[in-house]
Amino acid sequence: MGLKIATIGGGSSYTPELIEGFIKRYEELPVSEIWLVDVEAGKEKLEIVGNLAKRMVEKAGLPIEVHLTLDRREALKDADFVTTQFRVGLLDARAKDESIPLKYGVLGQETNGPGGLFKGLRTIPVILDICKDMEELCPDAWLINFANPAGMITEAVLRYSNIKKVVGLCNVPIGMEMAVAHLLEVEHSRIRIDFAGLNHMVYGLEVYLDGKSVKDKVIKMVTELDDSSFVKNIQGIAWEPAFLKALNAIPCPYHNYYYKTREMFEKTKHDAETKGTRAEVVKALEKDLFELYKDPELDIKPPQLEKRGGAYYSDAAVRLISSIHNDKRDIQPVNTINNGAIASIPNDSAVEISCVITKEGPKPIAIGDLPVAVRGLVQQIKSFERVAAEAAVTGDYDLAVLALTINPLVASDKLAKEIVDEMMEAHKEYLPQFFKGELVQGN
Amino acid sequence: MGLKIATIGGGSSYTPELIEGFIKRYEELPVSEIWLVDVEAGKEKLEIVGNLAKRMVEKAGLPIEVHLTLDRREALKDADFVTTQFRVGLLDARAKDESIPLKYGVLGQETNGPGGLFKGLRTIPVILDICKDMEELCPDAWLINFANPAGMITEAVLRYSNIKKVVGLCNVPIGMEMAVAHLLEVEHSRIRIDFAGLNHMVYGLEVYLDGKSVKDKVIKMVTELDDSSFVKNIQGIAWEPAFLKALNAIPCPYHNYYYKTREMFEKTKHDAETKGTRAEVVKALEKDLFELYKDPELDIKPPQLEKRGGAYYSDAAVRLISSIHNDKRDIQPVNTINNGAIASIPNDSAVEISCVITKEGPKPIAIGDLPVAVRGLVQQIKSFERVAAEAAVTGDYDLAVLALTINPLVASDKLAKEIVDEMMEAHKEYLPQFFKGELVQGN
Amino acid sequence: MGLKIATIGGGSSYTPELIEGFIKRYEELPVSEIWLVDVEAGKEKLEIVGNLAKRMVEKAGLPIEVHLTLDRREALKDADFVTTQFRVGLLDARAKDESIPLKYGVLGQETNGPGGLFKGLRTIPVILDICKDMEELCPDAWLINFANPAGMITEAVLRYSNIKKVVGLCNVPIGMEMAVAHLLEVEHSRIRIDFAGLNHMVYGLEVYLDGKSVKDKVIKMVTELDDSSFVKNIQGIAWEPAFLKALNAIPCPYHNYYYKTREMFEKTKHDAETKGTRAEVVKALEKDLFELYKDPELDIKPPQLEKRGGAYYSDAAVRLISSIHNDKRDIQPVNTINNGAIASIPNDSAVEISCVITKEGPKPIAIGDLPVAVRGLVQQIKSFERVAAEAAVTGDYDLAVLALTINPLVASDKLAKEIVDEMMEAHKEYLPQFFKGELVQGN
Amino acid sequence: MGLKIATIGGGSSYTPELIEGFIKRYEELPVSEIWLVDVEAGKEKLEIVGNLAKRMVEKAGLPIEVHLTLDRREALKDADFVTTQFRVGLLDARAKDESIPLKYGVLGQETNGPGGLFKGLRTIPVILDICKDMEELCPDAWLINFANPAGMITEAVLRYSNIKKVVGLCNVPIGMEMAVAHLLEVEHSRIRIDFAGLNHMVYGLEVYLDGKSVKDKVIKMVTELDDSSFVKNIQGIAWEPAFLKALNAIPCPYHNYYYKTREMFEKTKHDAETKGTRAEVVKALEKDLFELYKDPELDIKPPQLEKRGGAYYSDAAVRLISSIHNDKRDIQPVNTINNGAIASIPNDSAVEISCVITKEGPKPIAIGDLPVAVRGLVQQIKSFERVAAEAAVTGDYDLAVLALTINPLVASDKLAKEIVDEMMEAHKEYLPQFFKGELVQGN
Repeated sequence: MGLKIATIGGGSSYTPELIEGFIKRYEELPVSEIWLVDVEAGKEKLEIVGNLAKRMVEKAGLPIEVHLTLDRREALKDADFVTTQFRVGLLDARAKDESIPLKYGVLGQETNGPGGLFKGLRTIPVILDICKDMEELCPDAWLINFANPAGMITEAVLRYSNIKKVVGLCNVPIGMEMAVAHLLEVEHSRIRIDFAGLNHMVYGLEVYLDGKSVKDKVIKMVTELDDSSFVKNIQGIAWEPAFLKALNAIPCPYHNYYYKTREMFEKTKHDAETKGTRAEVVKALEKDLFELYKDPELDIKPPQLEKRGGAYYSDAAVRLISSIHNDKRDIQPVNTINNGAIASIPNDSAVEISCVITKEGPKPIAIGDLPVAVRGLVQQIKSFERVAAEAAVTGDYDLAVLALTINPLVASDKLAKEIVDEMMEAHKEYLPQFFKGELVQGN
Repeated sequence: MGLKIATIGGGSSYTPELIEGFIKRYEELPVSEIWLVDVEAGKEKLEIVGNLAKRMVEKAGLPIEVHLTLDRREALKDADFVTTQFRVGLLDARAKDESIPLKYGVLGQETNGPGGLFKGLRTIPVILDICKDMEELCPDAWLINFANPAGMITEAVLRYSNIKKVVGLCNVPIGMEMAVAHLLEVEHSRIRIDFAGLNHMVYGLEVYLDGKSVKDKVIKMVTELDDSSFVKNIQGIAWEPAFLKALNAIPCPYHNYYYKTREMFEKTKHDAETKGTRAEVVKALEKDLFELYKDPELDIKPPQLEKRGGAYYSDAAVRLISSIHNDKRDIQPVNTINNGAIASIPNDSAVEISCVITKEGPKPIAIGDLPVAVRGLVQQIKSFERVAAEAAVTGDYDLAVLALTINPLVASDKLAKEIVDEMMEAHKEYLPQFFKGELVQGN
Repeated sequence: MGLKIATIGGGSSYTPELIEGFIKRYEELPVSEIWLVDVEAGKEKLEIVGNLAKRMVEKAGLPIEVHLTLDRREALKDADFVTTQFRVGLLDARAKDESIPLKYGVLGQETNGPGGLFKGLRTIPVILDICKDMEELCPDAWLINFANPAGMITEAVLRYSNIKKVVGLCNVPIGMEMAVAHLLEVEHSRIRIDFAGLNHMVYGLEVYLDGKSVKDKVIKMVTELDDSSFVKNIQGIAWEPAFLKALNAIPCPYHNYYYKTREMFEKTKHDAETKGTRAEVVKALEKDLFELYKDPELDIKPPQLEKRGGAYYSDAAVRLISSIHNDKRDIQPVNTINNGAIASIPNDSAVEISCVITKEGPKPIAIGDLPVAVRGLVQQIKSFERVAAEAAVTGDYDLAVLALTINPLVASDKLAKEIVDEMMEAHKEYLPQFFKGELVQGN
Repeated sequence: MGLKIATIGGGSSYTPELIEGFIKRYEELPVSEIWLVDVEAGKEKLEIVGNLAKRMVEKAGLPIEVHLTLDRREALKDADFVTTQFRVGLLDARAKDESIPLKYGVLGQETNGPGGLFKGLRTIPVILDICKDMEELCPDAWLINFANPAGMITEAVLRYSNIKKVVGLCNVPIGMEMAVAHLLEVEHSRIRIDFAGLNHMVYGLEVYLDGKSVKDKVIKMVTELDDSSFVKNIQGIAWEPAFLKALNAIPCPYHNYYYKTREMFEKTKHDAETKGTRAEVVKALEKDLFELYKDPELDIKPPQLEKRGGAYYSDAAVRLISSIHNDKRDIQPVNTINNGAIASIPNDSAVEISCVITKEGPKPIAIGDLPVAVRGLVQQIKSFERVAAEAAVTGDYDLAVLALTINPLVASDKLAKEIVDEMMEAHKEYLPQFFKGELVQGN
């Protein structure tokens, strides 16, 4: 009996990577059914990418059934793993997340600041709805979420649903390990980083090469780079050597937003004005990708997909699924329940941390106290995530303003209110929880 | 046998308030000697204000001896209470703390951001030196510090000296209680606020009128004010009602810098450009005050002093001393060792918290977890204070850059480095710990 | 408008002390109504003691109305303070608590070991019922409980009811302070002890005379006593000097049961065999007391009551009520919500700790970590209290066996089961929650 | 270049198992030198067992050099792994640990109660001495300790030495997993238990078969056993079903001493009276073993060794060494630094917990809070371990009495003192730290 996979947001342009991931691991991970689910608005894309998926499987000669459906419940029924990669409001919503804040002098980005808040507000009610269905239809399944903001969403699932078998996945830490391996010119497998923090706010606290610490060496090398980034889609400026040496930990690329706040705002604004927002760039890329996908001759993941950003995401998801299924006990950094692994973060909150991946799921490795210098920022983002998740669940406008005020990229109650007001209106159709009164009046 | 008080920085313009405080409490607090200590550079002021002090005591007809000295050790010998109110580098240093950051688009203020960092770097070595003298000369004395930044300094004393009988004093919380009493039009004594947080980062978590919570009412009233401030010298803009309602706690005036960061920067910059920095304003005020003080006819605290800002500070110090001496068990918010009172702050760190003041000193009232929304910012300032204190003690340049990078008002490693570089140079003469190599070369 | 007091278990022999307490504090504590409530079985005693109460008030010439009633709800209606001093099953139940365990070689005592467990199992459902009434009839009232085991009961109220204004009261710590004052031959008011721990498991962590530590001296003096006890009704044997010196804290009298387990068992058994159980002794004392109370000439608290044991209990209750009402801010050790005051005990658990007593209630003074050597025992009793409280609420037999197995005085699952079985049967009529099935069958 | 192993206590009867472990893993664990170290008193045994070791290696045809030495420093020089299996005072000391307490009505056992205390007092100074040598001679080596009491010793190394690469090893948890596998009649590899607690005080908090919880089933089966033991050398009596069901965790065999205290005392006493103490039994076994070992024809581990008790210990050590060397990432329960893995145990204390074993050493898996019912006992044993370790390091007699008083098997300051006095005298020659004054007088 093979495994049943349900992929919510199956019409995503990433799906071919996911399918390729299953195909290449078929021997260790005997998947018999993949259900690609999407909503009415994504139907056309679902068919295009779904048919490509079918051709890929057929070419591989594997007995995997690929199903396309708009009926989420049918897909979830008895699933072994549920992956979520949907985007509420599609790229148009992302474009708003990225462009509106810029008008207020605030970073426009889809997982940080106002964009992160509103992506969370739109996504959390949907994911909690999926959880309710899972409780009923596949209570033993693992939910592998890689919809962003993954930290806030994992927090919301842990806190507001009964699904405890949830993992939030991000490709940032693995990218950091690969970047370090690249720096040191060694095989990735010889490097291991002790990761701890939150999603998009994760630090490498220790770096090992063949089991011996090389952190000092890596920090020195990083300070000598021209470019502070460790993954492709966030290009930064080199870290100040004094800062990094005293920090004594490896920041992640998203830390640029917090440790180079003004510089990153300027850069993002400049990019938006010259090249368009990231959403617009991606939209064009996706258009091309879907043109490619339509080609009935295409039966592999086209190499162009790797340019899309977020590469290795889907592959990382399949790798995680295989590690769980096969009790691989490899160490992967994922978003999971803290359980005391990081001091001062509640036991029942989500953290991003190195875990050993077992058949029973990810088990977080205890790291004790975070270094003094990083505790503050990590707590601040956790405060933001928790207030935002509560706002998403309750539809409480005041909490949304509070969440944005305490976000370090905004840090102004006045700005927070203005941005919330404009974005709430802009995303109104995806935020029914905030417009309950109006809807009633509407009737 | 009366009490011996040693006041370091005795030449301060505040001294008449301190003397008045002792005079008016003489019956409950039998002080027999007050030693006003200052450094060579402050000798003239010391004599002016010291002579006024003598005239005040004489007028009151009390058997208090007032001594003026440049010999700190003589003053400390067998003291019962040591108060510290000195300013390393005097108002000229403050002017630099306030003006240099503005050039980089960062708030210039003497206890927050770069100004707070550099005031700490200058003051901490001196206070630790005083502690060493105290260990030897008056090991049972209480150190009542009201030199700023009081939180960072208390942290440094707790962590890097053997003096454990230390209290950091601030007039902000008492000012908040008075403001709330004023709002509600009731006697101050009927109001009690549960304070918790850090110095200049303290929240009123609960507000009682005659033992019953009136927090909701107060929050509502505060949102209806035109002006967000609760004490005179930081004028703010009204809090957004949505923010304050969701915060569900009373912020302190300094929170304006963190919850209205941009607005406060603009305001401070505008004030500096139009009225001069606060240091310059105070300098003029002080000049006038010292002219007054010189008048041999003057034998009371002149009413003009209340305009100086920082009113009630010295009186609060005498009140605290009396509460300790008399085991008054009144509840006062002071800076003291946390001892678990606030969760997630180390037991041995300084916090600003409501304490019952006993003969054994202040005892912090446990409040458990801070509200979710405020945990982040409090942790961030505690991270800043700890890294800054370590930089002050070690003279480690990298730590100074790190401290400023993680400060929410800077949030940029590049800016942090530039500001540290300019301010380090500007304050060089008061920062010997950072120029050890150079001094050696200088010889 | 005066205060309304409702006293559940008003027919207790202690009531005259309570009444005396109100009379002598009338000026500061203007009580207008005292409602003495009891159950049908206690009606006769209620009338005897209630009439004495009326005579006492009349003699004092105060406008306090004393009401006697079997209708608890009438008494609770709009009460300001509710005191609970009832004993479910009266002294007959206590006799069983004291005698049955002895047969198994286990201490028989009403607040520790099996006796403590069963007193808790009988009392907790009743107190939670009172709490439900209070929510409805006097939601702003303070519940001042001195029914034993006070720690377990406070834990149960905090965890399983909506009444948060609850204080558990014990005369042990005050007795320890008085004993220390007696040892040092000074006025009680000059001594203050920092208490922390649990009810009947409280330690004096620091001892001050006029604000200066005299702990070492007191420990030395205690080791030189012939008798380890600090309060009258638990006579012990002197502490081993080596033990006490290394413990470096003042144990409470009930610690004899845990640090002299075998010796105390032997003593208790011997006493029971020679003098009868304590319940039997008390029963005789009470009989005499009620004979006295009947005397229509008696209009004061008869001095014989002080021999009863538990002296100062009722007076302590009135003192606490007055401190709350008058915002006295004296420091009293009471049982209240931990709120982080003692590390490693959950924030929402009950602890016995020095509190400042304000109009808003007791506020626990943070003490941070308990000394290493006492952490274990305190945690063990807290584990016992929590499992026992859960057993009382759920009626889960297995939890009752678990609670007794982990109690250090039993430490055997086999013994625990045997004792639970016999005591459950013996107290059956007061433990309906454990016999639900049977009752149904009975119908 | 092969690995160098230094085995302190190399003359132990267990050594053949250790050698066999290295031989059978040679392919994955290329050991080139094994240094067996012993003290003068163990010289004869060292030669007997060392020569057997040489014959075993020769028979296996492997290029492993076996060295026998009394010079510890020569053995430690550049070692990669140091294993410690020595017994200070040999079996004669153990016999005293087991017999003296019985006279006082207290369990006589070598790792619990008075025996555990005194074994710790004798062993800790020696292990700290080894650590000092390691710092100098092989600072990168791992110390794999399986001398008992392993928890107290790991605590002492973490707290009082600079060696941080230390693992305490015990065969109890692995034995529990094997016993569960046996119960369920499945392969051991399909079972995984989440272990947490302390050495000889470890609980199985969750039990998985193929990644799914089977805890309830196992608990049910265990309650139906005739015998509560999971490993050979502690035969117990079946657990009370009510207790075990409510405990909802799998106790370890040593929990018999704490949850069946009286029964185990009786059993141990009876065994000692009828069969002799365990030390005496082992002594006879060892005599026979060494007779066997002398046989120059013997070149394998004789099967009789498995009867010795402590089987799999040495093999477990080699398995752990191989997992570290090969970065195996298998999950093994070992004694290591807590680092926050178990709430309420200090970060820097030793715990016994499931770890993933990597090239960087064991990494503890965070489990958050222990179940309420077990927190107390675990804290109590940790209190005991910490006070005992401090006594061992300082030679403070009072601390030794305190440690034994707070040990749940003694629970009497009077008994504690009497037992400490007799055992201190009996073990005098191995406790120089407690007889410093006397030694000086002796000269």
